Amino acid sequence: MLYHETLKQIGGLNEEAMLSARDRMDNLIKPPGSLGLLEEIAVKVAGIIGNPRPQIGKRSVIVMAGDHGVINEGVSAAPQDVTWQMLPAFINGVAGIGVLARHAGASIAVVDVGVATDVEIPGVMKCRVKSGADNIAQGPAMTREEAVAAVEVGIRVALREIEQGATLLALGDMGIGNTTPSTAILAALGGYSVAEVTGRGTMVNDEVLGKKRQAVTSALTINNPDSADGLDVLAKVGGLEIAGLAGVVLACASKRVPVLVDGFITGAAALIAAAIEPKTKYFMLASHLSGEPGHKLMLEMLGLKPMLNMGMRLGEGTGAALAMHIVEAACRVLNEMVTFAEAGVVDMEEDKLLKG
Amino acid sequence: MLYHETLKQIGGLNEEAMLSARDRMDNLIKPPGSLGLLEEIAVKVAGIIGNPRPQIGKRSVIVMAGDHGVINEGVSAAPQDVTWQMLPAFINGVAGIGVLARHAGASIAVVDVGVATDVEIPGVMKCRVKSGADNIAQGPAMTREEAVAAVEVGIRVALREIEQGATLLALGDMGIGNTTPSTAILAALGGYSVAEVTGRGTMVNDEVLGKKRQAVTSALTINNPDSADGLDVLAKVGGLEIAGLAGVVLACASKRVPVLVDGFITGAAALIAAAIEPKTKYFMLASHLSGEPGHKLMLEMLGLKPMLNMGMRLGEGTGAALAMHIVEAACRVLNEMVTFAEAGVVDMEEDKLLKG
Repeated sequence: MLYHETLKQIGGLNEEAMLSARDRMDNLIKPPGSLGLLEEIAVKVAGIIGNPRPQIGKRSVIVMAGDHGVINEGVSAAPQDVTWQMLPAFINGVAGIGVLARHAGASIAVVDVGVATDVEIPGVMKCRVKSGADNIAQGPAMTREEAVAAVEVGIRVALREIEQGATLLALGDMGIGNTTPSTAILAALGGYSVAEVTGRGTMVNDEVLGKKRQAVTSALTINNPDSADGLDVLAKVGGLEIAGLAGVVLACASKRVPVLVDGFITGAAALIAAAIEPKTKYFMLASHLSGEPGHKLMLEMLGLKPMLNMGMRLGEGTGAALAMHIVEAACRVLNEMVTFAEAGVVDMEEDKLLKG
Repeated sequence: MLYHETLKQIGGLNEEAMLSARDRMDNLIKPPGSLGLLEEIAVKVAGIIGNPRPQIGKRSVIVMAGDHGVINEGVSAAPQDVTWQMLPAFINGVAGIGVLARHAGASIAVVDVGVATDVEIPGVMKCRVKSGADNIAQGPAMTREEAVAAVEVGIRVALREIEQGATLLALGDMGIGNTTPSTAILAALGGYSVAEVTGRGTMVNDEVLGKKRQAVTSALTINNPDSADGLDVLAKVGGLEIAGLAGVVLACASKRVPVLVDGFITGAAALIAAAIEPKTKYFMLASHLSGEPGHKLMLEMLGLKPMLNMGMRLGEGTGAALAMHIVEAACRVLNEMVTFAEAGVVDMEEDKLLKG
């Protein structure tokens, strides 16, 4: 079974490659640590790829689309059909992720893993597990078997991108109402109260926010997800695109390819992946800190530091795409800067310095 | 006189271009505001350039190098000769800014505006006003005339870059000891106590930190800079590369070209420019939040929001170069995304939405 085979292949970071990368980084012509997170990213990518001089080549954004029965609780300002109506704009490069993926030099894979309406859209991969997740405020989003099937969709799509040469993947989502299941996942796995973690998503007013809090509370009470079982949380209070994205993370971890988490929805998917297999965290990079308040808690749970802090809250993978340039920059710093000795900056050789 | 002519040409933002850009931004296929700071940047650049559909073309990093007599107070771990010894690595593309400017697709102009030792370095523009600033802990860094001359160096270099087609400039600095005058500038112009704003710079231990605090205190006491007179603060407690960078800002403002502020040193230069002419703030963009603690206060004084938060504290323009990609992304979003009507996402037309 693809799911179990993938999990079996997930290992740790390559410590030797990381030590070698860190050693070189500390000897480059700059004070040690002065490039901050850029240095940490390069060293982590070295450990992920298992190469002390990692390079970023082809890159790909994977956008998973799915719908949510919970919108019947009035948790979203936008109607459900917007989920599929946005997809042509992703493919045609005129939506946010279309523009930012192109700017990042990334290809984009758009996957219908469970949109409510069965529509043919040229360029969209149809891997439909079911026509939208069921209403989590009234019962589980899907069965455990459906959850595994949706995770396997993500694994398959990611493996294909990696086989075709992708060296860096970004997670993107589309699904009207999907901040509600993401909030439920955060509350379930983080042990937070619903009030602490429920944000406005996009375009949500006070009335809708109240309904959202109530829907998350119902979802957790009725389904009682087992926080020690990631797949249970996913099936009970998650969503199909969230499952697919968790699958992308599992595949990246199994193939040792760095994967960029985007905002709140992909953060929930990353939490599910980490609940299923904690070692997946080694292979994740955080791109940005979302304007959605619970995102900060997610990144803390995952032990990830965001590069960008721009109050973005569109999803689609927009923040992750924007960060691809920075991951590449980190690797180029490691590869293309020289050491003090190589540069002939003799006065920075160690014995000539006051100790800091 | 170039200095006064430049100041006379500085105007405000083009409100009409900004309104038009904001109007388009709000109608693109995303919830209004959901791309956060990316949206604000695009609208600001529209106002700077005076074009509702701004594009970023050629770009350039200007690195100003200068030395500081205040290192005689023991405020720096690195010896003074490192200032000139680093410059070949900037030109050859193997230092931090060399790599990151190349990654940003930017050219790099390296200017000796006052390095202590007079050295010939191929590719470095020699525009030496004097051989290093004098020790600010014992008297003024330079005369008012020298300050104006160094500012004019920056104006001339920036004008040349702009004449050669640069549409986006980034500020970079090199100068051993230059966090000390930058701290004095922040304290003088912001009204902060020395203890509040003195950070470690690079590689500074507790003993050196103590000397640095003392040097800044002496500089402010002995020189008594007039916080209402930016040029007075610059001449008394600044530095030659800081003056040159302030000149770059003035030139950008006069020619309506966006200029990216880097870290703590270029932040001090931006404060000087804003003290000389507050309208220069309209033309600045903040790239990153430095690991140097006073930088946050500087950006608040300038009313600027940083895009990146990566604990970088190398200077050289590294954070500013890294942000060029993001400024370009902001403009591409404005130009290349379509509206809901154009995309055929009929369910997001205004009358069909619940109001957020």
